[in-house]
Amino acid sequence: MMMYRKAATLLVGSFYVSAFQSGSFQTGTIIRKSPFFNSSRTSNIGTFALTSGPSFCEKCGSTLEIKIPQGDERKRHVCRNSECGYIVYNNPKVVVGAICTHSDRVLLCQRAIEPCKGKWGYPQGYLELGETTRQGAARETWEEAGVHFDPSKSELIALYNLAGMQIQTIYRVELESDEFEAGHESSDVRFVTWDDIPWDHLAFPTVQWGLEHAKNMKDEIKPTVQERTKFVTLDGQWKVEEG
Amino acid sequence: MMMYRKAATLLVGSFYVSAFQSGSFQTGTIIRKSPFFNSSRTSNIGTFALTSGPSFCEKCGSTLEIKIPQGDERKRHVCRNSECGYIVYNNPKVVVGAICTHSDRVLLCQRAIEPCKGKWGYPQGYLELGETTRQGAARETWEEAGVHFDPSKSELIALYNLAGMQIQTIYRVELESDEFEAGHESSDVRFVTWDDIPWDHLAFPTVQWGLEHAKNMKDEIKPTVQERTKFVTLDGQWKVEEG
Repeated sequence: MMMYRKAATLLVGSFYVSAFQSGSFQTGTIIRKSPFFNSSRTSNIGTFALTSGPSFCEKCGSTLEIKIPQGDERKRHVCRNSECGYIVYNNPKVVVGAICTHSDRVLLCQRAIEPCKGKWGYPQGYLELGETTRQGAARETWEEAGVHFDPSKSELIALYNLAGMQIQTIYRVELESDEFEAGHESSDVRFVTWDDIPWDHLAFPTVQWGLEHAKNMKDEIKPTVQERTKFVTLDGQWKVEEG
Repeated sequence: MMMYRKAATLLVGSFYVSAFQSGSFQTGTIIRKSPFFNSSRTSNIGTFALTSGPSFCEKCGSTLEIKIPQGDERKRHVCRNSECGYIVYNNPKVVVGAICTHSDRVLLCQRAIEPCKGKWGYPQGYLELGETTRQGAARETWEEAGVHFDPSKSELIALYNLAGMQIQTIYRVELESDEFEAGHESSDVRFVTWDDIPWDHLAFPTVQWGLEHAKNMKDEIKPTVQERTKFVTLDGQWKVEEG
C-alpha cells in the first residue's frame, strides 16, 4: 500500500475548480486540511453561522468564544469557562416533505405563515427528534392538511442539498382518501390536477423541483430519486446543480 | 372537497400498530395531534432529549424551562426571560459516509477514537454547515484516510434512519488512485477485497449494512438506494425495518 499523497489530487471536480483557481489554496504542497469547507464558495456561510450563533454556553451560562478546539479543524463556539469547555456543534438540519396524490390529483397547502405566506406547497417541515424521515413527512402532512398516510407506503423521490444549511428528503405517496382539514399553518388546502398546479405561486424553488419531478415520475412504479444542490457561487449568485 | 376526518385513518401501518394497540391513543375520537411523535415507541427518545438538553439560554444566558411554546405541539426548552423568549429546536443530525473502491477493493479505516476504537469502517461523520452531503462524505474521506475524490462522481447508495436521532446519507465512489494516508482519527487504513472485509470487527451495524449493500451493488451501473430504519420497540429492543 502506498503511503503518500499527491497535491494533484486536490483537484476535486468541476464544482470546486473555481475555488482553487481563485488562489485560495497553495498548489504543489500537501494541504492536510480539507479544501471543501474552506473554499471561497462556502466560507461566507460558515462565517455567517459563527457570527449569528450563540452568545452563552447552554451548559453553564458562561460566555462563548470562537476558536478551533483541540483536535478539530474548524472554528467553533467554545465555552470560556475552562471547567466546562463545552463545544457547540452547529449542523445542517433535515427538512422532510410529502407529495401526496389521490386519483391523479396532488395535495397542496397554501401557507398561512411566513416565509412565503399565501404561496402554495406540499406539506413539509423540520424533522423532529424521535421520528424517522418518513414519519416526519407523515406528521407534517397531518399537521398542515389533516391527512394521514402510512409512512411505510411512501417512497423517496428527492434528496435536496440547500447551500450546506439544510438537506431535504421528499417522499411521494398515493392516499387512500381525499379527505382533509387545513391545519393552523395552512390558509387553504386543495387537491389539484397536475395541470392545475399554480406554478407561479409556489412557496420555494424546491417545491417546484419536487412537483415537476413527481409529475414526471407519476406513471413510474419505481421513481428515480432526484438529487439537486443549490449553492452560492464565487460571485454571490445562486446556482443549482444536479447531484 | 370533503372537510372531515375519520379516526380510522389513524391506523398508519405495521410500524405503528403496536403503539396504537398499547392503549396510548384514544380510538373513535378525532386526535388533532400527530400520533407519530407521541407514540410509546419514540417517547423515551424525546424525553431523553429534553432531560439531557441545555440548561441556559444561548442568546441571553437566562435559565430555560420545558414547556409547549404557543402555536407548537410539543415540549421545547424555552428561555424564562420573557424579553428574550428564545426557543431551542433540537433536531436530528446528518451523518455522511463514503464507500470508496479501487480495482474491486474497498477503503476501510480502523478507528483510533471512541466509540468503537479499534473497529473498522468506511469514512463517515457529521455533516458540517456550508457543505453538501457529497462534499461532507469527501471531506470525511480526506480527514480519515487522506484520500480525495470528486464529490460529483459519487453516487447515493444508502439512506439510514437511526431511532429518530440521526439520518445517514452514504455514497459510493470509484477512486482514481489507491494512495492514502491515515488521518489522526484512524489507527490504520487499508484497501481490502470484498471477501476480506473484517465483518466481525466493524464499528457499527450501519457500516455492515452499507458494505453488504455496496458489495451486492458492485456490478450495477446504477445502484439502488438502500433505505433502512433502526428504532426502539415497545419492549425496549432494537429493531430494523427496510424503508
